[in-house]
Amino acid sequence: MQKSASSTNLGPGGLDIAQSFFRPIHGASPPPPTSRNTKISVIGIGNVGMAIAQTILTQDLADELALVDVNADKLRGEMLDLQHAAAFLPRTTISASVDYSSTVGSDLLIVTAGARQIPGESRLNLVQRNLALFSKIIPPLSAGSPEAILLIVSNPVDVLTYVAWKLSGFPTNRVIGSGTNLDSSRFRFLIADHLDVNAQDVQAYIMGEHGDTSVALWSSISVGGVPILSFLERQEIAYEKQTLENIHKEVVQGAYEVIGLKGYTSWAIGYSVTNLARTILRDQHRVHPVSVLAKGLYGIDGEVFLSLPTQLGRRGVLGVTNLHLTEEESQQLKESALAIMEVQSQLGI
Amino acid sequence: MQKSASSTNLGPGGLDIAQSFFRPIHGASPPPPTSRNTKISVIGIGNVGMAIAQTILTQDLADELALVDVNADKLRGEMLDLQHAAAFLPRTTISASVDYSSTVGSDLLIVTAGARQIPGESRLNLVQRNLALFSKIIPPLSAGSPEAILLIVSNPVDVLTYVAWKLSGFPTNRVIGSGTNLDSSRFRFLIADHLDVNAQDVQAYIMGEHGDTSVALWSSISVGGVPILSFLERQEIAYEKQTLENIHKEVVQGAYEVIGLKGYTSWAIGYSVTNLARTILRDQHRVHPVSVLAKGLYGIDGEVFLSLPTQLGRRGVLGVTNLHLTEEESQQLKESALAIMEVQSQLGI
Amino acid sequence: MQKSASSTNLGPGGLDIAQSFFRPIHGASPPPPTSRNTKISVIGIGNVGMAIAQTILTQDLADELALVDVNADKLRGEMLDLQHAAAFLPRTTISASVDYSSTVGSDLLIVTAGARQIPGESRLNLVQRNLALFSKIIPPLSAGSPEAILLIVSNPVDVLTYVAWKLSGFPTNRVIGSGTNLDSSRFRFLIADHLDVNAQDVQAYIMGEHGDTSVALWSSISVGGVPILSFLERQEIAYEKQTLENIHKEVVQGAYEVIGLKGYTSWAIGYSVTNLARTILRDQHRVHPVSVLAKGLYGIDGEVFLSLPTQLGRRGVLGVTNLHLTEEESQQLKESALAIMEVQSQLGI
Amino acid sequence: MQKSASSTNLGPGGLDIAQSFFRPIHGASPPPPTSRNTKISVIGIGNVGMAIAQTILTQDLADELALVDVNADKLRGEMLDLQHAAAFLPRTTISASVDYSSTVGSDLLIVTAGARQIPGESRLNLVQRNLALFSKIIPPLSAGSPEAILLIVSNPVDVLTYVAWKLSGFPTNRVIGSGTNLDSSRFRFLIADHLDVNAQDVQAYIMGEHGDTSVALWSSISVGGVPILSFLERQEIAYEKQTLENIHKEVVQGAYEVIGLKGYTSWAIGYSVTNLARTILRDQHRVHPVSVLAKGLYGIDGEVFLSLPTQLGRRGVLGVTNLHLTEEESQQLKESALAIMEVQSQLGI
Repeated sequence: MQKSASSTNLGPGGLDIAQSFFRPIHGASPPPPTSRNTKISVIGIGNVGMAIAQTILTQDLADELALVDVNADKLRGEMLDLQHAAAFLPRTTISASVDYSSTVGSDLLIVTAGARQIPGESRLNLVQRNLALFSKIIPPLSAGSPEAILLIVSNPVDVLTYVAWKLSGFPTNRVIGSGTNLDSSRFRFLIADHLDVNAQDVQAYIMGEHGDTSVALWSSISVGGVPILSFLERQEIAYEKQTLENIHKEVVQGAYEVIGLKGYTSWAIGYSVTNLARTILRDQHRVHPVSVLAKGLYGIDGEVFLSLPTQLGRRGVLGVTNLHLTEEESQQLKESALAIMEVQSQLGI
Repeated sequence: MQKSASSTNLGPGGLDIAQSFFRPIHGASPPPPTSRNTKISVIGIGNVGMAIAQTILTQDLADELALVDVNADKLRGEMLDLQHAAAFLPRTTISASVDYSSTVGSDLLIVTAGARQIPGESRLNLVQRNLALFSKIIPPLSAGSPEAILLIVSNPVDVLTYVAWKLSGFPTNRVIGSGTNLDSSRFRFLIADHLDVNAQDVQAYIMGEHGDTSVALWSSISVGGVPILSFLERQEIAYEKQTLENIHKEVVQGAYEVIGLKGYTSWAIGYSVTNLARTILRDQHRVHPVSVLAKGLYGIDGEVFLSLPTQLGRRGVLGVTNLHLTEEESQQLKESALAIMEVQSQLGI
Repeated sequence: MQKSASSTNLGPGGLDIAQSFFRPIHGASPPPPTSRNTKISVIGIGNVGMAIAQTILTQDLADELALVDVNADKLRGEMLDLQHAAAFLPRTTISASVDYSSTVGSDLLIVTAGARQIPGESRLNLVQRNLALFSKIIPPLSAGSPEAILLIVSNPVDVLTYVAWKLSGFPTNRVIGSGTNLDSSRFRFLIADHLDVNAQDVQAYIMGEHGDTSVALWSSISVGGVPILSFLERQEIAYEKQTLENIHKEVVQGAYEVIGLKGYTSWAIGYSVTNLARTILRDQHRVHPVSVLAKGLYGIDGEVFLSLPTQLGRRGVLGVTNLHLTEEESQQLKESALAIMEVQSQLGI
Repeated sequence: MQKSASSTNLGPGGLDIAQSFFRPIHGASPPPPTSRNTKISVIGIGNVGMAIAQTILTQDLADELALVDVNADKLRGEMLDLQHAAAFLPRTTISASVDYSSTVGSDLLIVTAGARQIPGESRLNLVQRNLALFSKIIPPLSAGSPEAILLIVSNPVDVLTYVAWKLSGFPTNRVIGSGTNLDSSRFRFLIADHLDVNAQDVQAYIMGEHGDTSVALWSSISVGGVPILSFLERQEIAYEKQTLENIHKEVVQGAYEVIGLKGYTSWAIGYSVTNLARTILRDQHRVHPVSVLAKGLYGIDGEVFLSLPTQLGRRGVLGVTNLHLTEEESQQLKESALAIMEVQSQLGI
């Protein structure tokens, strides 16, 4: 593990200095058996993984941050680039390794590793390649941190969260997909931008699959406490259903648009996952739309992970809120579940 | 200017909604003539510019953030990627434009734009190309924000800060180069890592040119209040001068090493510049090693910018500390000044 | 003005040191004509005023903090006690003075000064004494900071905000009472505590008078996006209206209960007012229930200040949301307005 | 334990609501055996204890905050006052109890409880009364949180830290007195104020007893990296030793002055202790002047606690720095140790 950037020694007496610089006090005892530091591991350090790692560092959520990837050079480069900022940040131990053993004892395992779609490749083929990848990644991660929360960011996130659940052997409350937490922020931004309000005053969820079949819950949107649809009705303001659908479409297209313009997405997913990390590690009991096992909820029967409004805390999933959906929304959510299960059924796990 | 990601309308009544959603109160007056929002502009949105912009956003230092670049697609992509995180951040108005007029009224102008060295290109040729670039960039920036602080990050930073000073017509206290603020953090990290202390408890400066002739001030390093060199002497710990020089060399090589490994530097310079932005905009009166007009200080005669320990605040440079250098350090600093002036003299400005 | 705790000098050469310690750079110009530091003044430094001042300091919202009171000893004691923490906080200039001229150029004026009820004193008599006090306080404050936002915390807050508006000559968007922002937080806490959720996921307003006639808007409460009342109906969970009224009663009694137990309230009002200060000074455009001129809104006719869900920003009041009230809630709000106007009418201003 | 402010129920179906509002997911398992929340207990909730508790809350350092005192009414009042701010703060579980069992499982135990000097009472008598108090407090605290760090704030802090060490049976690295951490901040403020620099750029320690015999380490003061005394000598600036002693005197008098003016100290000690809590709980490895067992260090022989520059982290004391003192400073430190031991020797423990 590349824990330190420095192999330089202050001369033959190098070790002596470190030891003599601070003197121990009389009667000090060895540290207690269990460390209580908060440790986060990020697996996969592409643009998404690094945006997550850097935002977690800036927001001071971890005492230890372990980066894992297959690319040893990039790993060391990213580690050094973060470590060089040490004078500007609270002390955080940053390590980088190609070996999963560096993640041992993590409180939160964030997986962003994943194959990218090859032009012409079928979606199923992509998922199967990622399944093969996860088969190598997840078992050592879960074995090394048997009490951790496993947070999956790799796409397609819902299927891969299911895969991670199966491979980890973890209880369902400790396997979560980042799901539509980001889509919901995009949705809230578009509404906030339109009404010139703060996005944090917009209550709005995207549920279901993180992808084309996601469901915009128009019936439960409120702004500053005012339910939008009933407001429009009471004010007798004409609006067309197509308009609402266009906003939802803009959300779904959001990631594609950014990828088309800058080549990849990074910042927003970095903030989104850090937002989840805070709720989980600081036991905030806040509600986020994330991918969880939906079986038995909202009329969904199968073993499928998709995004529902979920209360999260230090134990992972605490519960799922009981939102009222319209008939149409409910139907869309079931269809979203079927779309995910269709892919899952072909994986053979 | 692309101020908003949204061109969608909530139907024919779209405008009406925004207007009717909030009702004005009786007797409200128009806003006062001068806005007091804090506005930061980042010119150049490569890896460095975006790491700066995103860290400023995370640390909530600006009310308005204007991004400027020549690449309209990347601009819009980066703007959208930041805006999509709106629900996770305090409200900040983010704009992106190829037009310098979007920076009007900035409090802080951060310039990261610059040509990259072409293989085989002489250093002088590179500087001349950047001079040509700055001739286009700086005048509209300084004209649009005549009371701003101008913070140069582009390399070679010392010469380009001089160029920006000449082109802007600003008083010297409002033209600053990021200089060795980052080198000093790397230096503090290496020492802290060696002694297992917090880098924030290490007092250590790199002065002079941000580059090969930079000067490590060993004589004034202290850790937790303990001056290192006299500590080593008192403890009679042998150290070799070569060892100290190796640490300095590791600092100088730091950027090259990261570039060799990951292709570019980004995070550390992002934190370094954000650290300067906070001291300046929040009027912190803290001392940073940054590039300022050195004329008349530390035995330097010419009109040259290089890094000295500088107290910064809302008015820019407040003063330069009066450190005691050893003969050798003093000599090195003068040589560093000469190396920069040698390049300057060939620019013909 | 007692700006500095120190009158000690480092010897006859004291001034020399300060001047020689930092050396000016060549070509520096005087500061630009207008300072852009953010200045907050707190008038009245009892338990409420100091909890506000200290929370503002901890949350780093101001570059300058001016404390004003009639008690010069307590002023100096509180100033020193805050200044002694300088090494633990970002640099903030803290001043303390019995003279209103120390508040000149404030961005935000927070008034907590006010007479306390004498046992046996009628409420009207108390208001009249505070009117006399405000007649002395408000004119010099508004004259010294003609572009400031005036935020009234003194009780009875709604009537005194009206008084401050009349005395200041400020437009209505720049005169705000802290109103039911704290009552609403208490309301959200009680609901969150009951359901074991994060209070930040509870959307709930108390409107109207900050006091006995305040109105709890049960019809618009939602938790994690779920409207509570319709949830109860759909789940066919029996609840009694009396139960809801008891929760509201607990909110109204909250301040009295704390006063009965510890003698005064301080922390919660400190956080509440700091929360408003952040939205205003950082131009957050968030919606808060605060006391504003209600004339023409929600069926209220008179010139009366009471709490409505208000969007706030750097210009003060940006607008009032258009919530749907039930008939009963609407009626209660009008009665709350009448109760306030009844007091106002006797003041003779 | 008064964990919740609310005893109100949403009707006969109250419990049903809380349970039906969030639905469990399929396959969730019970929480892991060991909670990993960070828990801080504050024992004694006078002005000092509450300033500490509130600053810890604002700075979001704890997931659980337990308040303990003998005054049940004040306890409940303070708890409610903090809880009422729930909507403005990250979620923190706040409890208040007269029973020490509420502190079980704490990571950090902060003791501010202590008898106040009765007019005419001898200092020794006061210490003996506090010894009697600590005999009741410390054993249940250390038994309930056997792996905690014990941080003593009560005065006389050095003797009482020794007492707490003896009574707790804890190893010396987990028993710390707040000592001169605050005196050093006052010292840094006075110097910073004089030179118009940021106090965070002033490196200066007060060592020894937190009280009349404390030692100002003039020989190791530096400002922005410049050692003050050698700077004065090089600049040939005349200063008188008396002047320096006056600044030290102002530090020693600081607490008395604040008490004389406002009746007690609160804010600065609140920030100082929160500063220590952050370094300890977030494992920052920073150096603070705090009271630790000095035996064998700096020429001190006896079992005495006094303030030395100490590196702190999650395990408590990591080491003591090896500062060079002048002969005079060294002698003063030994005399300070003797003054403390003189009191200790009369306690009979």
